[in-house]
Amino acid sequence: MDLKGRDYLTLADFKREEIWYLLELARDLKKKQKVGIPHQQLKGKTLGMIFQKASTRTRVSFEAAMFHLGGLAMFLSKNDLQMGRGEPIEDTARVLARYVDGILIRTYSHQEVLDLAKYADVPVINGLTDDFHPTQALADLLTIWEKFDTLEGLKLAYVGDGNNMAHSLMLAGAIMGMEVTVACPEGYEPNPSVVVKAQSLAGQTAKIQVVREPQVAVQGAQVLYTDVWASMGQEEEAEKRRKAFQGYQINGELLSQAEKEAIVLHCLPAHRGEEITAEVMEGPQSVVFDEAENRLHAHKAILAALL
Amino acid sequence: MDLKGRDYLTLADFKREEIWYLLELARDLKKKQKVGIPHQQLKGKTLGMIFQKASTRTRVSFEAAMFHLGGLAMFLSKNDLQMGRGEPIEDTARVLARYVDGILIRTYSHQEVLDLAKYADVPVINGLTDDFHPTQALADLLTIWEKFDTLEGLKLAYVGDGNNMAHSLMLAGAIMGMEVTVACPEGYEPNPSVVVKAQSLAGQTAKIQVVREPQVAVQGAQVLYTDVWASMGQEEEAEKRRKAFQGYQINGELLSQAEKEAIVLHCLPAHRGEEITAEVMEGPQSVVFDEAENRLHAHKAILAALL
Amino acid sequence: MDLKGRDYLTLADFKREEIWYLLELARDLKKKQKVGIPHQQLKGKTLGMIFQKASTRTRVSFEAAMFHLGGLAMFLSKNDLQMGRGEPIEDTARVLARYVDGILIRTYSHQEVLDLAKYADVPVINGLTDDFHPTQALADLLTIWEKFDTLEGLKLAYVGDGNNMAHSLMLAGAIMGMEVTVACPEGYEPNPSVVVKAQSLAGQTAKIQVVREPQVAVQGAQVLYTDVWASMGQEEEAEKRRKAFQGYQINGELLSQAEKEAIVLHCLPAHRGEEITAEVMEGPQSVVFDEAENRLHAHKAILAALL
Repeated sequence: MDLKGRDYLTLADFKREEIWYLLELARDLKKKQKVGIPHQQLKGKTLGMIFQKASTRTRVSFEAAMFHLGGLAMFLSKNDLQMGRGEPIEDTARVLARYVDGILIRTYSHQEVLDLAKYADVPVINGLTDDFHPTQALADLLTIWEKFDTLEGLKLAYVGDGNNMAHSLMLAGAIMGMEVTVACPEGYEPNPSVVVKAQSLAGQTAKIQVVREPQVAVQGAQVLYTDVWASMGQEEEAEKRRKAFQGYQINGELLSQAEKEAIVLHCLPAHRGEEITAEVMEGPQSVVFDEAENRLHAHKAILAALL
Repeated sequence: MDLKGRDYLTLADFKREEIWYLLELARDLKKKQKVGIPHQQLKGKTLGMIFQKASTRTRVSFEAAMFHLGGLAMFLSKNDLQMGRGEPIEDTARVLARYVDGILIRTYSHQEVLDLAKYADVPVINGLTDDFHPTQALADLLTIWEKFDTLEGLKLAYVGDGNNMAHSLMLAGAIMGMEVTVACPEGYEPNPSVVVKAQSLAGQTAKIQVVREPQVAVQGAQVLYTDVWASMGQEEEAEKRRKAFQGYQINGELLSQAEKEAIVLHCLPAHRGEEITAEVMEGPQSVVFDEAENRLHAHKAILAALL
Repeated sequence: MDLKGRDYLTLADFKREEIWYLLELARDLKKKQKVGIPHQQLKGKTLGMIFQKASTRTRVSFEAAMFHLGGLAMFLSKNDLQMGRGEPIEDTARVLARYVDGILIRTYSHQEVLDLAKYADVPVINGLTDDFHPTQALADLLTIWEKFDTLEGLKLAYVGDGNNMAHSLMLAGAIMGMEVTVACPEGYEPNPSVVVKAQSLAGQTAKIQVVREPQVAVQGAQVLYTDVWASMGQEEEAEKRRKAFQGYQINGELLSQAEKEAIVLHCLPAHRGEEITAEVMEGPQSVVFDEAENRLHAHKAILAALL
């Protein structure tokens, strides 16, 4: 399979077999790293990483990923760039594309990422926007696959904010033949156009739905997922959100209503006592740190395949 | 030719044959990169990059350049350094010189760069000061040379602010045997001492002059050059400058008065509708993105020659 | 000797022979670098460097050290990380440990470093806290050893603030069999618990004491040491401290009362005219820039031994 030169903007750009190709590549690179087999598939290549928002996991895992692959990742924070100081994104895109072999961007507006991809001659990777978080979703699929040895037919319950993470999980599940149920309070539903998109991708084999009750969502679920109630940039509505999300917590009680072998994922950072209890987070069913590690391996696969 | 250990502070420090040596080295390294021939001439070497001002092109191109050459560039922003927190520059210089093989600095005061070079035992590269921008000028010479297969005898018209870019282009032209005419409004002339210096370097073969009328400057010019009207740090006088620079815009009308084969350069970022029109910027005579790319190759030559 | 996997939190964690092992390794790596012998002992390894405070020396020397050893150091400033934005340190620790082979942290609270080390599965290196500065102290020992060809029995006089530097020097001296006398004004004594700890480590061979008079401290001393009166974060009490520290300056007068062959160390940045005179700083007995360089070599030894 050849994904060289492709952008990685949302999972909807990829077919099921392409996602499987990335997942298998990720597993292979993970194995190679664990046993110390060099895998410098991007020797001499460079990645520019534009961060308009703070990041721990995305940044460190991509920087380490490029290094393991023999390349260099350059961290470009909003303070260090002239972008946003009146330079139009099409100019930044065209200039950067002359210096680097790929661009990762974490920003607010998804449109900005689309513009960047339009004007940059090199692959652009979406490292988080207000609408999507597709690199995290690939790490999540890898984690689920490792635990259950399959993806098709699994049921994932997402409990909480219908945000970029919910969007990407719906798309991921739809493409991979999973059942994804998002449970969220009124006013915090996923974007209807993304729901429709996911449902159209789902075809016969997958099922995507949005419900109100967490208890309904977790029925029969092998995977429970949640995210913070207030993302970066939403700090001032934190109090309002805290009220709205009462009852949308993954705790021992809710977890007990899922399948017995269910695993719990969280893209981190986690706010214990809000969207998840410390007990569940540190409990035997939580795989959140394996999931975090898998970002490294998933990112390596994306980079190795696209650059 | 051996430039090892030399500083790169202004072009006036270099003879014509030394600049030609750098240009030929740049072209050679560019060719090697395009066809994938490794050129790790600085294996194990490190470059400290001090940025007191934001940067996209200078920073990314130098960081990629060091990596391609087998070395490491360390990005040191003013927030991350103790410099300026009361540590005298001679101490910073002497300490850094114990850790790195070269220092790039982008700052306001040219004197600061001179001080750094005085105290640092390793080559110091001027990555932009209020007075000069010599790394950009080398990339510009490379671009012009590529397009016209010569430099000597060419006429370059610089339209706009008599700033650091104008200064470095006057020096570059004077040394390389070109005719450089700067057209600028009253009050925005280049520093007279730099004009005198350039004219003294020009000797018999080159010609450096400052005029008022852009139309006069572009007569017979093969190269048109402009820069933003208000540079970083001059934001508050932007409105005043916008008025002063009326008529100093490179647009279709002005371009049509230059030589037919004329090319348009801009060191970026560009403000369309101010110093340049979108039409010219995106038109067939604009080489601004090739010029931006050439910063990478020119910087590699500087690094490979000096470090 | 095998220090692999150990943390480097304070010197008190190490035995005398372990410190000697690090010093000999540092000298060996320094020699290799000077003659150009590759020493890529950490090929493919990564170091995460968390900086909650600005840094020149620690950051650049560790970043260069990892590169020389074949690895990669990732600079993570407080602006770039989500840590401190509500993410508990145990989560950051566990996540980072999945991506990197070691973590360097410069922060305020020593407890934060202990917490990080507790939860991170990889070696944690203390790059400065309010209480200790053990990487600097190792570079200091290396410098003293180089100059006197021994450590045991030497007398070190520390003049000034009983801060993290004084703490680490007391511990270093105690372990290595030196006599360390700290002279400080009332109210600026070292933490009594650290003094007691150092004295207990000193056993029969070393001697640790705190005195009031600088003149008493420097009697018979081969090594004079000082540090700024107001460290980062203490700027608002600078005036008060300037008064309190009158008389605690290393100047020609005080230096003349030490041993004739005495050397002067300072961890930098230095405030000439305050804790040290320009005359002494630039005089023949000052080894401050050799000391600064030795941070690179000492850090390489720490990294090569632990990672």
